[in-house]
Amino acid sequence: MAVYTQLGAETLAAIIAEFNVGTLVSAKGIAEGVSNSNWLVETQGKDDAADGKGPARFILTMYEKRVEIEDLPFFLGLLDHLAERGCPVPRTIHDRDNQPYRFHEGKALALIEFLPGVSVSKPTPAQARAVGAALAQVHVAAADFPGKRANGLGLAEWQALAKACGEDGLASIHPELGHLVERELAKLARKWPKDLPRSVIHADLFPDNVLMLGDRVTGLIDFYFACTDITAYDVAVTHAAWCFDGAGKRFDPALSRALLDGYESVRKLSAEEHAALPLLAQGAAMRFLMTRAYDWMNTPADAMVTRKDPMAFARRLEFYADPANAEVFA
Amino acid sequence: MAVYTQLGAETLAAIIAEFNVGTLVSAKGIAEGVSNSNWLVETQGKDDAADGKGPARFILTMYEKRVEIEDLPFFLGLLDHLAERGCPVPRTIHDRDNQPYRFHEGKALALIEFLPGVSVSKPTPAQARAVGAALAQVHVAAADFPGKRANGLGLAEWQALAKACGEDGLASIHPELGHLVERELAKLARKWPKDLPRSVIHADLFPDNVLMLGDRVTGLIDFYFACTDITAYDVAVTHAAWCFDGAGKRFDPALSRALLDGYESVRKLSAEEHAALPLLAQGAAMRFLMTRAYDWMNTPADAMVTRKDPMAFARRLEFYADPANAEVFA
Repeated sequence: MAVYTQLGAETLAAIIAEFNVGTLVSAKGIAEGVSNSNWLVETQGKDDAADGKGPARFILTMYEKRVEIEDLPFFLGLLDHLAERGCPVPRTIHDRDNQPYRFHEGKALALIEFLPGVSVSKPTPAQARAVGAALAQVHVAAADFPGKRANGLGLAEWQALAKACGEDGLASIHPELGHLVERELAKLARKWPKDLPRSVIHADLFPDNVLMLGDRVTGLIDFYFACTDITAYDVAVTHAAWCFDGAGKRFDPALSRALLDGYESVRKLSAEEHAALPLLAQGAAMRFLMTRAYDWMNTPADAMVTRKDPMAFARRLEFYADPANAEVFA
Repeated sequence: MAVYTQLGAETLAAIIAEFNVGTLVSAKGIAEGVSNSNWLVETQGKDDAADGKGPARFILTMYEKRVEIEDLPFFLGLLDHLAERGCPVPRTIHDRDNQPYRFHEGKALALIEFLPGVSVSKPTPAQARAVGAALAQVHVAAADFPGKRANGLGLAEWQALAKACGEDGLASIHPELGHLVERELAKLARKWPKDLPRSVIHADLFPDNVLMLGDRVTGLIDFYFACTDITAYDVAVTHAAWCFDGAGKRFDPALSRALLDGYESVRKLSAEEHAALPLLAQGAAMRFLMTRAYDWMNTPADAMVTRKDPMAFARRLEFYADPANAEVFA
């Protein structure tokens, strides 16, 4: 949540001029993206780029780290593929040489369509239903996308992060956390499904990454964790992201029902997928528990970034691990 | 450069609904403002709020600190006063009760007109001329503004900041800095003018705080250091901000000439003001030297915020203190 690179107006104007979208008239650094710099830019003077209703607006993203250059064709090609098939995702604007990204002083940057909408923080069932349907739409539309990308935050990485945190480190967050992680990681390693349908998944579809107007999804954004993995795991991630309060203390069955119904209104889950969801949801909770625990231990308490509480996902993990709650996915 | 407060979409929508500007359709936290949270918001459905060309856009500012609530009527009233008189400053949007600011959970917030334009980083003489003229326009238009506000960063505060830094502290930035500050502060205390014309001044008109389209000033923004002080001191601050490279190593006489000519095309400086400019410019350089030195010493080198080099203004101070350079203002 920062702008890491300062670009002067003259530089921004020269960058925008490389795309066929008119002349730069405004650029505001926006506080989005965990490891990218982003600007909301406006242009004028290019009629076919505008929506007929005003200045044309775009998000200019500069990739600072984490996103490897070799993955950009996957991420940006996926957006174009999904947008062409009617998914509510932003198109990438290709430059005058029809390239989906460019370089500026060694850093890659892309110009991406601006979409209206706001990210809800207290979703309603109708909103959860719409998000479930949009996620399924992505899974269906991605079926013929040729790109592949391994999940960089799968079981092996959860294990590596747990090791990096160490039992003492986890215990410093909560006395019981080391035991919980050890026990649940062992179970996940033993039981993680091998034969479920796979596809491109978003893998991080929190409310922050969904733009909505009322009950309508206007944009799924931030595909920088997208990868090829178990399709139903994406349902589980989205479930963990949408169906609890932020602290993970209160599960909302109405949101859960609506999310799953919305998903299945577009793509039916098989019996095997249904049966696997409780375990996949434990994996989803583990994934965010481990990255948050690692970041928690490696971010000074007084840093300018807000640390996200790992325990919010430890609680989700315990919820999903409780056999009494398996009926949520029945 | 951050968004300090997270506001969910539902909260933002409720806040925007208190102004007569249509319905919220987009809100992006923007990386502007040193100590405020700012969002670029878009609304639709309110024809008379839109510019006829597209969605209506506004800057929503939440005041986190530094800006005292009791100063808001001054800052926001000044914007309205200047905008009414044709100065390129953003209007404040009053709420449905005609209040220029509201409260949300104990914090004040204001909705401010969005203005197009970008901040240049390498100004041309034509741009410097336009900025000089716009500054003079503000000084003239502010003449009948009834508000008063003391300068919270005047000579007494430079002295206090120097004391807080300590000679060792300043020496830790540069071996000669303590001596320079001591000598120049003594001179400023002895010679600071008492009888020059006073008015409302912007007091921080760096290129960052000016929006331009080509050579035209489309917006003077960030009036949160505005105060009542020596009018020509504002010319000196703007001179120090615009007529050097960022490091303060290279003075640009063409920018200087253009800035002063542009200013005097709207408001003539008196002989006394002309004569005082070299000393006022030393004061301006001291003001930014001291706040930067203090921030430098009190910001960890690895903090997420970029520390601004105090020496960039030590160099300007030395430039202005050299009698050979007084001719710049002749």
